Order: sequence, then C-alpha cells, then structure tokens
Amino acid sequence: MSGFGRILYGGDYNPDQWLDQPDVLKEDIRLMKLASVNVVSLGIFAWAALEPSEGRYEFDWLDQTIERLHGAGISINLATPSGAKPNWMGLKYPEVRRVDKVGHRDPQKGRHNHCWTSPVYREKVWEINRKLSERYGKHPAVILWHLSNEYGGYCYCDLCFDAFRAWLKNRYQTIDALNKAYWAAFWSHTFGSFDEITTIDDSVNGLQLDWQRFSSDRCVDFIKHETAAIRAGGSILPVVTNMMGYYTELDYWEQAPVLDYVSHDSYPWWHRELPDAAIGADTSFIYDLFRSLKAGKPWLLMESTPSNVNWAEVSRPKRPGLLRLQSLQAVAHGATSVMYFQWRKGRGGMEKFHGAVVDHTGNEHNRVFREAAQVGAELATIPQVADARTNPEVAVVYDWNVRWAIDNARSIRNVSKDYLPTCFSFYLPLWSRGVAADIINSLQDFSKYRLVIAPMLYLLRPGVAERLHTFVEAGGTLICTYETGLVNDTDLVFTTGFPGPLRDLFGIWVEETDAPIDATIQNVQVSSGNELGLSGSYKVKHYADILHLEGAESLGSFTDEWYAGSPALTKNKYGTGTTYYVASRNDDRFQDDFIGGVLAQIGITGLLGSKLPTGVTAASRTEEGVKYIFVMNFNNNVETVVLPDGLRSLDGAPSATPITLPAYGCEILVQE
Amino acid sequence: MSGFGRILYGGDYNPDQWLDQPDVLKEDIRLMKLASVNVVSLGIFAWAALEPSEGRYEFDWLDQTIERLHGAGISINLATPSGAKPNWMGLKYPEVRRVDKVGHRDPQKGRHNHCWTSPVYREKVWEINRKLSERYGKHPAVILWHLSNEYGGYCYCDLCFDAFRAWLKNRYQTIDALNKAYWAAFWSHTFGSFDEITTIDDSVNGLQLDWQRFSSDRCVDFIKHETAAIRAGGSILPVVTNMMGYYTELDYWEQAPVLDYVSHDSYPWWHRELPDAAIGADTSFIYDLFRSLKAGKPWLLMESTPSNVNWAEVSRPKRPGLLRLQSLQAVAHGATSVMYFQWRKGRGGMEKFHGAVVDHTGNEHNRVFREAAQVGAELATIPQVADARTNPEVAVVYDWNVRWAIDNARSIRNVSKDYLPTCFSFYLPLWSRGVAADIINSLQDFSKYRLVIAPMLYLLRPGVAERLHTFVEAGGTLICTYETGLVNDTDLVFTTGFPGPLRDLFGIWVEETDAPIDATIQNVQVSSGNELGLSGSYKVKHYADILHLEGAESLGSFTDEWYAGSPALTKNKYGTGTTYYVASRNDDRFQDDFIGGVLAQIGITGLLGSKLPTGVTAASRTEEGVKYIFVMNFNNNVETVVLPDGLRSLDGAPSATPITLPAYGCEILVQE
Amino acid sequence: MSGFGRILYGGDYNPDQWLDQPDVLKEDIRLMKLASVNVVSLGIFAWAALEPSEGRYEFDWLDQTIERLHGAGISINLATPSGAKPNWMGLKYPEVRRVDKVGHRDPQKGRHNHCWTSPVYREKVWEINRKLSERYGKHPAVILWHLSNEYGGYCYCDLCFDAFRAWLKNRYQTIDALNKAYWAAFWSHTFGSFDEITTIDDSVNGLQLDWQRFSSDRCVDFIKHETAAIRAGGSILPVVTNMMGYYTELDYWEQAPVLDYVSHDSYPWWHRELPDAAIGADTSFIYDLFRSLKAGKPWLLMESTPSNVNWAEVSRPKRPGLLRLQSLQAVAHGATSVMYFQWRKGRGGMEKFHGAVVDHTGNEHNRVFREAAQVGAELATIPQVADARTNPEVAVVYDWNVRWAIDNARSIRNVSKDYLPTCFSFYLPLWSRGVAADIINSLQDFSKYRLVIAPMLYLLRPGVAERLHTFVEAGGTLICTYETGLVNDTDLVFTTGFPGPLRDLFGIWVEETDAPIDATIQNVQVSSGNELGLSGSYKVKHYADILHLEGAESLGSFTDEWYAGSPALTKNKYGTGTTYYVASRNDDRFQDDFIGGVLAQIGITGLLGSKLPTGVTAASRTEEGVKYIFVMNFNNNVETVVLPDGLRSLDGAPSATPITLPAYGCEILVQE
Repeated sequence: MSGFGRILYGGDYNPDQWLDQPDVLKEDIRLMKLASVNVVSLGIFAWAALEPSEGRYEFDWLDQTIERLHGAGISINLATPSGAKPNWMGLKYPEVRRVDKVGHRDPQKGRHNHCWTSPVYREKVWEINRKLSERYGKHPAVILWHLSNEYGGYCYCDLCFDAFRAWLKNRYQTIDALNKAYWAAFWSHTFGSFDEITTIDDSVNGLQLDWQRFSSDRCVDFIKHETAAIRAGGSILPVVTNMMGYYTELDYWEQAPVLDYVSHDSYPWWHRELPDAAIGADTSFIYDLFRSLKAGKPWLLMESTPSNVNWAEVSRPKRPGLLRLQSLQAVAHGATSVMYFQWRKGRGGMEKFHGAVVDHTGNEHNRVFREAAQVGAELATIPQVADARTNPEVAVVYDWNVRWAIDNARSIRNVSKDYLPTCFSFYLPLWSRGVAADIINSLQDFSKYRLVIAPMLYLLRPGVAERLHTFVEAGGTLICTYETGLVNDTDLVFTTGFPGPLRDLFGIWVEETDAPIDATIQNVQVSSGNELGLSGSYKVKHYADILHLEGAESLGSFTDEWYAGSPALTKNKYGTGTTYYVASRNDDRFQDDFIGGVLAQIGITGLLGSKLPTGVTAASRTEEGVKYIFVMNFNNNVETVVLPDGLRSLDGAPSATPITLPAYGCEILVQE
Repeated sequence: MSGFGRILYGGDYNPDQWLDQPDVLKEDIRLMKLASVNVVSLGIFAWAALEPSEGRYEFDWLDQTIERLHGAGISINLATPSGAKPNWMGLKYPEVRRVDKVGHRDPQKGRHNHCWTSPVYREKVWEINRKLSERYGKHPAVILWHLSNEYGGYCYCDLCFDAFRAWLKNRYQTIDALNKAYWAAFWSHTFGSFDEITTIDDSVNGLQLDWQRFSSDRCVDFIKHETAAIRAGGSILPVVTNMMGYYTELDYWEQAPVLDYVSHDSYPWWHRELPDAAIGADTSFIYDLFRSLKAGKPWLLMESTPSNVNWAEVSRPKRPGLLRLQSLQAVAHGATSVMYFQWRKGRGGMEKFHGAVVDHTGNEHNRVFREAAQVGAELATIPQVADARTNPEVAVVYDWNVRWAIDNARSIRNVSKDYLPTCFSFYLPLWSRGVAADIINSLQDFSKYRLVIAPMLYLLRPGVAERLHTFVEAGGTLICTYETGLVNDTDLVFTTGFPGPLRDLFGIWVEETDAPIDATIQNVQVSSGNELGLSGSYKVKHYADILHLEGAESLGSFTDEWYAGSPALTKNKYGTGTTYYVASRNDDRFQDDFIGGVLAQIGITGLLGSKLPTGVTAASRTEEGVKYIFVMNFNNNVETVVLPDGLRSLDGAPSATPITLPAYGCEILVQE
Repeated sequence: MSGFGRILYGGDYNPDQWLDQPDVLKEDIRLMKLASVNVVSLGIFAWAALEPSEGRYEFDWLDQTIERLHGAGISINLATPSGAKPNWMGLKYPEVRRVDKVGHRDPQKGRHNHCWTSPVYREKVWEINRKLSERYGKHPAVILWHLSNEYGGYCYCDLCFDAFRAWLKNRYQTIDALNKAYWAAFWSHTFGSFDEITTIDDSVNGLQLDWQRFSSDRCVDFIKHETAAIRAGGSILPVVTNMMGYYTELDYWEQAPVLDYVSHDSYPWWHRELPDAAIGADTSFIYDLFRSLKAGKPWLLMESTPSNVNWAEVSRPKRPGLLRLQSLQAVAHGATSVMYFQWRKGRGGMEKFHGAVVDHTGNEHNRVFREAAQVGAELATIPQVADARTNPEVAVVYDWNVRWAIDNARSIRNVSKDYLPTCFSFYLPLWSRGVAADIINSLQDFSKYRLVIAPMLYLLRPGVAERLHTFVEAGGTLICTYETGLVNDTDLVFTTGFPGPLRDLFGIWVEETDAPIDATIQNVQVSSGNELGLSGSYKVKHYADILHLEGAESLGSFTDEWYAGSPALTKNKYGTGTTYYVASRNDDRFQDDFIGGVLAQIGITGLLGSKLPTGVTAASRTEEGVKYIFVMNFNNNVETVVLPDGLRSLDGAPSATPITLPAYGCEILVQE
C-alpha cells in the first residue's frame, strides 16, 4: 500500500470530551463537511473513556462516533490510547509510571510518561489495542491506526535497566569487549560484569551513547508491541505514529521501518523574532527529512495548527494566507495529508487555548474556520499529487547518532556546537535555489545522489567511511567540514589522524582545531578567479581546523592567528569524484556562495532555472511524467518570479512569466 | 473595636536573644522612650525560649519583659510563636515539617515551614497560645495578638492531601461533578473517585486552581485555630497577622474576615534601578489594598525598615527624609501604625544586617536612630488621624483568583502576562492626580464607586458578570481590557464568544487575539477631537484583540497587521452607565491620557484640583468632617505644588500657595 | 627535604588505559625521552586495574611500568588511587558513596565522590596504599607520593554528621556555648543538645561556617589517613596532593602543614574574552599563593595543559610561545616542576579531547609536542633555579574563612560581593610593577613584611586584630577597606562600632555603608598635591562606607549623595607605622595610583626599577646570592623593556638595554 489516492484532510478529534453534549457531536459533522474534512484522528487520549475502570470497557460512544463519521463519508485514523494512562492504572500499578534520571518515579499525572518496559503496561496496552482492532479493524470507515501519541522521553527504572543490560550483553557478548569499546579503564570505570551497569555515567561516553540507542530501541520495540496487538485483533490496516521533526531523544530512522507511514507534527514559529522565510526553510528541511525517512513514500502531516499554539513563550495567530501556504508546502515536500491538532478547542485543561479548526464559539463564522475550509476545498482539487514522488540529486546528512555523540562530547567547545543548525546552513542555499534535497542519515544509500553534504560527521558508523569512498570514487561529490571523522561507532577516537578513515578521501590531515570565540578573530580569504566563484573574505567563528594538504588543493586560506595562510577550504579528486573540506564555520554569505559554486560545477540547477527572490522557493512532485511545481512566497509582501518556458497552470493554461505571488502566496504549476 | 486612638509606633522586639545581657534589656527601654516608641511586637520567634523542651515552659523572662515595658508605658502586641518551631519538635514529630511539591519533607531548619494540617502541630500551637492567653491576655500592657509571622507557602504532605480531598468532596459532592468542572476527560485525566486525586496535575487547570484555593483556605483555618486557642485562654483582645502585600500564594481577601485587623510588612526597593516615584506609587497601591481589605478600617504597618533590608540583591540605606515620607505615606493611606522590623539588630543569624532602629553599637548616636526618633515624635502629634477614613469613588480590581488562573493558563503568551503590573498601570494615573482609589477583588460591592477598573478580568467568579451589569446599568463607569471574560469559576472557557457573559455589556465580540512580540508591530490611532482628549498614536505590545462592534462605538483603531482598522478602544452605553474596552496593552502615555480623559468625563478630580508635578501625589483621610491631606514628594529634588484655596496647616494657619516640598518632603494640610 | 635539585618535567601517565597495546607503552618511553621528561605521575585513577575485584590485587603491570620508566631514567610520582573508587566497591558498600546536601546518595559513577568519613572507604584506602608503599616505597625510581586527586566537595551523610557533632562538641564543650556562639536564639534555633544538629541551616551563619571548617578538616584528616597508610607500608618519601588554586570549599592553609609539598593544577583561560595579560596576572596571583602556602618552599606545578582543556565553555589551543611562557612563569613564581595533565590523550571517556603532550596520533610530529619538547629541554638547563627562594616585602591577605563568611552573609549586597576579585585588584598594581608579593591568610606572620594589604577583612579570626596592631606599631604599613572588622570568629557582629577591634588602628568609625548599584552614583575626589600622587576623580561602585574621623586624616572625599564630603580614603599613624582605609570600591585607575603611591611612600620599587609596559611583569628567585629575574611579556605583540644596570644573561653575557621581548616572550636574567 503506498497512498490514499487523495490528500487526507482533517485533524485530532476528541468526542470523548463532549459525550454529554450530543448537539455538539452532531454539529461537528456539519462543520467537518463545511470544511471538506475527509479524515479524523480519533480517540488519541480516550483510554479513560474506553476503560473507565480496570477491565470494564465502554465502546458504545466510540461505536456511535464511528457510525456518525462513516455516515458523513469521513474516514478514521483510529488511535491506540497509550499516550496517557488512566488514573486507576497509574495508582494501582506504580511500575507503569516512569522513573527519571535521578531515580524519582513520576506521580500519576500528565501524559507521555509510561514505562515502555513495564510488563503490566504492555499487557494493558495489548488488551485495549487488541479489542479496538477486533471491534473496528475491519470497519469500512477506519483506514489507518494512529499508534499512541508523540512517543518521547526515557525511563530509568529497574525494569529498563534490566532490559538495557540484556541489550548490552547481546551487543558486546563479553564485559571485556564492552570495557574496551567504552575505554572504561578511564577513571577506573572498568566493569566487573554487566550487573555493575546500574546508572548512566556521563564520563563514559560510549555508555551514554548506547543508552540513547537502547532507549530509542525501546520505543521501536514498544511500537512493535502495539502493532502486534492490533494484528492479533485481526486488523491489517497500516500503522502510523506522529513524530516530532528532529526530536532529540529518538532516532526516527530506527522507527521508520516498523511503521507503514511516518507522520510529523509541525509547529513552526511564524511571525516571531526570525523572518518567516527562515522559518519556512527550516520547515522544508524537516518535511524533506520525513519524505526521506521512508525513501520518498508520501508521509502524513499529522498535526499542525490552524492558528496559534499554546505552549510557546509567545505564539501569534497566522497572518491571512499562511495557513494555505504552510499546508501546500507540506504537500509540495511529499505529504499526503494536511491535518490539525485540533478539530475543536476543549473548554478546560492545559490545551484549551491551542488553535483549532472550531473555536470555543463552535461555529463557522470566523477567519480561522474560513481559511481552513478554503484549504480543505483546494486540497480536494489535487488528488493527483497525493502519491507523486520527488527524486533529489542532493542529500544532506543529518544523523541522530552523530548528534548524540557531538552533544555528549566534552571538547574545545561545549557551547554553540550547533550540529543541527550547521546541517541546516548547508540546506538553506539549496532551498533558496529550489534545488530538491533529501535529508538522510549516514546509513542510507549514497549512490542515488550526485552530491552528498555531510557536515560535522563527527562519528563514523560502521561502513560509512567505506561507502563514502565508493560514492566519490564512482563520480559523486562529497562535502564535509571541521569536526569530521573523529570517533568510531563506540565513540573511541581514531588514532590515524583526523578526519580518521576519511583522511585519504579528502587528501588532508587536521593537526589542531582552534575555537575562535567570535567572528572578529578569523577570516577566510579565497584566491581571485577561483572556480567556485567565491570572492573576498568570509568571517569565521566557533571552529577552525589547522590542516595540512596531503594531495588536496587549497581554495582558500585563513588570514589571522598563528595559522594564517593555512588552508581553509580544500578540494580533492578521488576516483572520478570530488571532495570538498570546509575547515571552518563560516558566515552565511560563504555558505551561499560555496554551495552555489559547487552546484554550478556539477551542473545542478534549481527547479525554475533562474535565481529566486529571497524568501521564495520552489518544490516539486512528479506522477506519471507530470511534474507539479509549487512556487512559494514566505514573505509578507508581493514577490515577482520569472518562470522557465513550458509551464502551465493546473487547469492547463500556459503560464505567463513573470508571475506575481501575493504575501504568503503559493502557485501550483505543471510541467510535462 | 475600630482604633487605638493614636498612631502606634514601635517594632519587632526580640529580648529572647539578649537574656544574658540585662544591661542591654534595660538600655532598650531608655532608647524606646527616646524614640517615642509606644508599642512593640513581642516574642515572634520565641518558642524555643518559651518551651525549651517538650512541655517545659519558661515564662519568667517574658513576665519580666512585659513588666519592664509596662512600667515604661509601652504597649505590647504579643506574638504567638508558631512562625518557627523549636528543634525538638521538628525532630521528634516529622509530620510537623512541610513536604514540598516533589515529595521531600523539609529538614528541621529555617522558619515558616510547618504543616498547617498536622494534628501534632495544631495541638502544640493550641497549648502555647492558650497558655500565653491565660497568662498575659488580660495584662493591661497587652493590646493585641500578633498571630505567627508572615504565613506563606504550601504543604504537599499526605495529611494535607486528605484534607484537600475532603475539601473537594464538600465542594463538588460527586466525582462526576468534579470531572465536568475540570474537563477531566482531557488527556484521560477522568478521576474514578476522590481517592484518585493524589497530586497536583498542572495539565488540569481546574485542579491547580482549587489547590491554590484550598491551600489559601488552610491558612485561614489555621488562623482560626490559633485564634480559638487564644480565646480558650480567656483573652478577648483583637488578633492581627502580618501579611505581605500582594503575596502570590494566599488570597488575603479570605483572611481579612477572620482577623480583627489586617497588617502589612512593607519593604519598597528605594534608590535602585526604578525611580523612587515609581516605587512610591507601587507602595501606595499596596497600602490602598490593605485599607480596602477591611472596607476602610485602619490597618497596621507592621513591619518596615528604618534603613536597609538584607535579603535583596542590593539594598541601599534610605536617603535623609525618606523614612519620614514612607511612614507618613502609610498613615495617609489609612494606617494606624508605623512599625519596624526590627527594634535592635541581633549579633548573629541570617538577619543580623537587616536594618533596625538600634544598631549593633546599641546607642542613639547615629543618623538612623535620629530619624526614627523624629518620626516617632511627629506621629505622636497627630492622634486625630489614627481612626480617620477615606472613601474613594474609584476602585481598581486586583483579584487573587484571577491572578492564579492567568498564571496557570497556557495560551498565546506564557511570558509577560503581567496581570499585576497591568492593574498597577491603571492605578498610576490616579495616583499621579491625587485621586483616591480602593484596590478590591471582584467579589466586593461595586455600588460604592463611580468608576471601576477591572483589567484582565480573565476569570469571572460567580455573580461577577451579573453584578457588573447592575453596576453599569445604575450609572457606573466600567473599564475592562483584553483577556477579560475568558473562563468561569472552574477555569472552563465560555462558549458564547469573548468577553463571555460581558459581551453585551461592552457591545463587542472578540474573535481573535494577537500577541505582538514587541512595541514595533502595532499601534493605536485615535480620531482627532475625540471626547477623551486622546491624541496621536500609541504603541502596543503583548496583547491586541481583534474584535467586532456589536453596539459599541470605536474610539481608536489599530494601524498595522492584517487587522489594521479594527477597533482598539471601544465605548458602550448600557443602562445609564458606560463601559470602555481597551483591546490592547498600550504604552504609558495612553494609560495616562485615557484615564485622565475618563475621569474628566465623569467629573472626578484630584485632591488638589490641579495637575501635580511628576513624582508628587496627595492622599487624604477624614475624621469628623475634617480632611487631612498629605502632599508627598517622592523625588530627590525640591518640588513646587499649587494648592486650592481654603487649606490650612495642622496648627491652623492658612496655607500659602504654592508650597515648596523639599526632596522626599511631606506636608500635612487640613481642610474643613 | 626541600628540593629535587632540578626542575621536574613530565605529567600524568595512565598506562592502565593501554595495557593491551604494548607497542604504545614502549613508544611512550621513546617520546618521553624526546621531550626531556624526567618524572611522571603514575596510576592516579588505577584502582580498578590494581584491585579488579575485592581483595584481588594485580601489580604486574605496575611492576613492569615502573621498571620501564626506571630503565629510561624517569622518576615516578606514584599515586594512591583513591580519586575514583572501582564499581564493585561503590555497589557493594553504599556508604562509600557521598550524600549530597538534599540527602541523595550518589550513584556509582564519576569520580571524587567518596565519603571521607566512611570506615569502609578508609579501610580500603589503607589496604591499597599500604600495599603500594610496601611494594614500591623504596624503589629507586619512586621519589614522591601523589595522594589521590583534586580532593574536593562535601558529604552530608549520617557518618559525616556524627563526625561533625563530635567536632562541635570538641570545639564548644557545651551546647550552651554553641548556642551563644551561633546566636541560636534567632528564629528559635536554640539547640537542646548536640544531637539536634542534623542539617546545615543557612539561617544560622555560625553553623554554616563551622560546617565549612569541619568539611575542610575532614579532608585534612583523610590526607593524614592516606599518609599514615603509606608510612605503615614503610615508605618515608614525601607526599603531595594536587590542589586547585583558590578552590572555594577547602582551606588549603589547613592542608599545607600535613603535606610535604603543595602542588597546583593550573588551567588559565588564555585567548578568551579577557586580555591575556589579565589572565597572566591572575595566574601569578595563584602561583604566589602556592609559594606562600609553605612559607616559600618550592611548590609543584602538578597539572597544566600543553594545549586546550575540554571542560570549559570554550578552550582554544595555546598560541606559539605561550606554553613556554606559562611554564617559565610557574618557575619564576617558585615552582620546582612543570607537569601536565596529560601525557597522552585517551581514546575514550570524558577527557579524551583534553590537551596532552602526545596526541591521538601518537607521534612527535605536531606543534604541541614540539613546543613541549622545547620547554623540557630548556628547563633542563636551569637546575640552579629549582630550589631558589623569593622573599617579598609585601603580602596580600586572602583568607578562606573570610571568604566563606562573606559569601554566607546576607547584607546590603548579596551579589557582586567579589571578595576574591577585590584581593586581586590590590595585587595587580604590584604585578604590573614587578613587585613581589606573598598571598597569605590572616593567621600568618605579618612581621616579615613591610606592607600588608588585607582587603574586605570582614571576619577577624582569633588574634588577628592584636597582631595587626603589633605589626603597624612596629613600623608596618597596613591597607584595609570597606567590609572590614564586622564579625568575630563565630560570625557574631562586633558591637563596638566598625571596623570593630581595628577602630583605633585606623582612627575611624564607620557609621553606615551605602551600596551604589553602579558607577554613576558616587565618586571619590582627592585633594590636589596629596602625598600619594592621586589625582582627579575616581568612580565608585558596590560599597561606600560613611565614616567619621577619630584621629585619622582624610586623603579624599565622596562627591555625591547625602554623604558628599565624607572621607573616602583615610590615613592614620599608629606607633611607628601607618594605616590606610579605603572606604569604597573604586575603579582600576584608583587601585593603580593608590598602590603606586603607597609603594613610593615606603620606598618599595619593582624588580627592574622603572615602570614596565602594560602586560609585562618580572619575578625573581634567589639562590646563594644570585638572583634569577624572569621578564615576561603576556601580550601578543613585541614589547621593549628597559633594564637596570648590572644584569647579565644566563650564559654570563652582560645584558643590553633595552631588551626586546617577542609576543609571549620570556627572558631570564641574572643579578649577583
């Protein structure tokens, strides 16, 4: 199964909060139709309504809800309720409550705080999931299973530590192997047996990293458990869970294979301190990550807000048009749904002021509803895009394992390490040019791409060095930076000189790294007339490698400090490919000039050919030879965009050029 | 009983720290006389001296102290010692020690950290209070009971939770009613029984709010318990406890009825980052709150410092004259006492450097003592003011329940909500004009006033909407703002459109609210020649309602963003009265122009008629037809003030006009 | 025993991390020789390698290491391994793990977190130390015992509280005496017995202070225990432990007497926000403290880094030449060793990126190794300096007891108290002039000096007031400041007027103290033509005493606030000596002018006579009548220094004048 044949449109629906108000439940259906809603995520936090006391199940209200929706032609993304446990469970079975890092067990409150290991919790989840599956798994309105909600966080209870020790035993077999992998002799941390691993010692980086991997695996294991219960109940419908962008604690690359779809909850901070265009680019970066997680398969925008959120320091309503832009942006980057948290605002509880399609007033007579209804209507007109694909020639590597290892490390800088912003800073010049990119981790297939950018590839997972060699040798272009090739998969430093196993690939040796405290200390000067079109002097901050050429060519040098004249940007030929090493963290102008230069060298051009106005981008999806191009303006003003020849509008009319996009405007064009 | 017939003057007296130095105790009496002290608060932290081990009482030292004071004609405000428990009690009975929010029981240390529920603590307090009452309750020198000290903080122990559950059961009767009142289905928080309430879940706002109300009630209940013990010992003297301005955690409106007097500990931050005039206005705001708490009955300034405090980041000595100004300011705003923490500086412990009348050197030869003695002498000359009253025509609503609910909410802004500063910003223009105001909560009688200002009246307690309608209908003028009428008494959002039950009263409907992140985003423009005399453009930050007129008239509009042109200030006629709705948080100039305009419309003028210099205010009290006017200069420079005709000085001489006030000067004038 | 006859050169050596790589161990020896290493600190964290399970000892690897080093002529500073306990111990015996202030026992992780009281820990340490002593204490290569590592932190377990109560009983004999010493009646804190002392109450300052003294004593006691175990094993070699500058929690003056040498771990923050010259001066201040700790006896620079550290927010590699400068600076200020953490970078663990002589690449072909080898070679040429001494005429008092008491106090300022920076601000003008100074605590002998500077001498320990009188009476010059003479040894305030027992010595009485919040509020104006050469107006912040002359002469007055005209700088003759009282915290220009003026008055001149360029200093050591003068340039540019006549270079050639110092240059000159 690969798609739904339409753009799903709807949101989180919580009728369990309104069971005593049948008029509201009825009105919901009328309003959903008005808004062109065709799917809802149902029952996400309904455990207390489904099982009000242990073993006593109440499905009547859900039966009726499903029939009501079905009668209105609305599909259902049915949730398992494990995102929040009922009070009776947390109080009767303390083990289901999570234990924090310093050993405190959570009180029974909040949500997202159950132990993924607890046998009791697993049994309770099994029962409710199986029953839901049996009862609704073949209902024609139900099309998808929404597993739990925003899985996250770690548990440090004894049950989890038991599981962790078993996980380690499986990974290392002997305690000696683990001691070596962790360099445990440091500070006398040598473990006498696996039983001596009882806490996470931040001074043992390998242990820290494995704990993060294990905890991420715990979640995968729990997803499998939830899914197995659904299958045990007889349903074969696809499963999905709503993920959270580049959420730190879970490696979504491990989750993707056990899910039928990946989905994302998107809450960009529009209209705040940063320009909306910067927010738009960051949002695209995440959307591209989700498109990449299952190799291009359409993903679901599971949550977004029609207006404001309620959890930020400050959250402003969306300016007119932005809701449409943000929704089409998701589609442009591969989504097959646009869905909201939440359909209707509740009257109480922490999220009562979170944006919703239906306001507290409960009617359609307000701006937010009107804009949402317009989006629904428009999405209904482009079903042909729902399963279309994108095949970028460029990939940016953003790897959770690398992120963990960088953040765990204590080195020349322990502030502003900025792994994620650095990855993004190499993505932005692509976005600005309308060049499509995948966001992958280092274990993915590089051979699909012509250009791979892997900033700060601090940790090299097994096989990565070899695969990067192969990729370049076969003609690929690879860009890496400072902080690359420092440690192996268990966080042990390479002893062969940095960038470790990539030293020959880049033809350099990094002897030392400076940590300029601000951008007044160091600059990069390029030679005039260089092939990449770089010009003048670029400011440096945070990192500056002092390196030696071992076959590479220098394209630019540092101008200051004791290593003035030392290469700052190098290029190396390897096989039939090329590598670039960026030795310092440079200013935005460098990022744009450099990536622009490399793209020009290898002949990759943007979707619309010519340069786009600042804050404007373009993205496309292709289905049966037809390319759908979304031109998007993230500025709060009109922009003019020059188009290449041969484009037409959705209705078939040839496109004039240039086109004018209103503030936050989006135009869909077609190319055959 | 309504007054003492004189201004009480004195302070906290701790002879229990000096029992081994009889010369010091004797010297205290000499110095008190020198300073015109006529009352002391005695034995506030003396439990360890009174009951050095369990059940062994030592009253001799207190007998002697009281006789010594009595012999000198000094009255006594005798304390119950519950503000700090002796070590033996905390160690033998762990239950008397408070438990914090995460479940830790306090060690035996500090002060103000006993459990108000603990039966053991209540019994020990009962015994000591009763004994003190029996022994001293009829002593002619004793005139007042000082209950404990600065009650504050919450306890989360099991005993308190038992009491909380009983409190809830009494309030809601059934768990279903509670679940509905709390919207508990949200996140599956439905409670199966009252027993399932075992922690305070911040995601259930109704529960949070009730916990704050309960904890505040616990204190009231404890005050009743302390008082009952005193009554059981035979004393009928009035009781008082020292409160702390607008202290967050306790609703002083609940305490006022069970106390014979309210009293306040006042520690303004003079001579720091803010101008002294701003500090002076804020101090007046609090003083007016205390005058209002018992409907105009004189209150006690129980603590203030003759020089510096010791607990602020930085605290400077008072400039010459400020001690007098601050003391007369309290009297001007309704106080019947001026008292200090502390009479004499101790030699050790955390407060050894807190300001006192008597310094470590122990003599009268220093500036602080001299100024304090002058204040004492002057206060002795105005006994006629001690029981005089003030009857303002204006009230500003500042309500603890509203504050809690606003602070608990998660909405478009979770920083800079600023409920209290907003209330103050509407008070400042009154203060600047010498217009008297009460500071009331929303349950007080509005009919006494001509103008009621209720900023950010987010939560409407039972009956408030109806009473505001009645008030305006009968001719009153009401000012409300953004963030008004959002939730009911259990924090459930109104579904009839904001401002909820006040929608018709203001003749508007608020569709959305923007949260401008700073003052560059939005402005209010008024029409020229408007009746309030507003002019030009005012800056907006934090809140801006997007509203529709439903009968109201627009007096000004927003100039920017998608809602440019939308009304920013509206006026509505209702019955014979008028309402104004201020849709945005505006700059200081707006506050001053707007309130000035409204006052002019309804014909309320300041005490001295004409406009006062910046930093100068006037306040008055009236007794038997004589009005005592205090003209106060909070600037560190000379100011000239024009007086109306017919004023005279205290000695009967007609007042010249203008008068000249020195830096920090205060002049008392009389009008008959 | 007073010296080693050479400058020790080497660092921390951890072969226990590389036991499975014999080639690396062999290469270490080759590289050590290349770098002129003559000593290593061995086995600091080797407990898990020495005793892998309880009672099973493995010494083979250490035998072999010692032989290998011995064979290469390298001496050994052999460590006791108590700095980190093995996992088996922490898990089997929970009592060895420390308990923090809120009562949590540490998990088994990290380092430096054992309880100094635990009988189990003491027994385990005894056994391993004794065994090491027996086995290696007479080995010819072993020259020194390195006790544990960077002792620090407090433990709050029951065992420690038992010991604390015994310590208090010994100190106060009766609980009444303690209650009086602590002013415990305050807040009813009177203790009924020593058993009631169960926690550290911050509101009882005397208790807080005694806890700090006790905890510091605990460490001394533990040092004695470790040493006794070594002696029990038969070794009579000297013991040392590596200390950490002015580390807050331990009073190093208490430790010095029980150690044969003091040693310091030095990690200045070069090349960051502050100028390197400021860092250099601060480093000298600490070095002078370590020279003073054992009355001039050479001390050991036990740790420093050849390049960066890994624990700072940001740490940059050292610029070329700085390693040499920093190393010679230590020697100039009395060190007899230059040693590093660490010899070789480990491949894993928290410190894997901490600078080392040998990089991960494991060879000599990099800048850091080359510079380190040059330093080693140069140090080998100046053995005559190793035991040379310095006898300053000036002392600056920096006292841990004073620091604790100031930090504990709650007074007019609770931020920016800045005791340490204030002491340093009086040292800097000495450093800038090349005037040698000891850094002493208030219990040291003052009679050795001509000038004693004791800033903010808030607490007067027993005998200090008397000894300061004696010192001045005999002709000494004493400088004190605001915040002097406030409390006695148990933190009880003096009642005789500030500066307490020093009032007559300074001929003043401090009535009040202002706390100007910034430097715009107050200034000091001096009279023109004053004897100290002060000129113009100086800015004041944080502290300004309002004082009265009682015999002293005023040299300058405040210009603002109500105390304008009040003396700001006073001078008093007492006996044949002179005292100066600096009543306010003044700007840097004042500090330099004032100290320069006082030095001129008493005829103390800098090492090189004339004024030195900013950022340049000079320090000297003398041996057998020969003075070795180190002229050091802490600037990143060339400086020219004028020399007095009669100097020559180390090789005997007369020195030309002026000399030119390169960036970070250091020249050693000789004067006979």
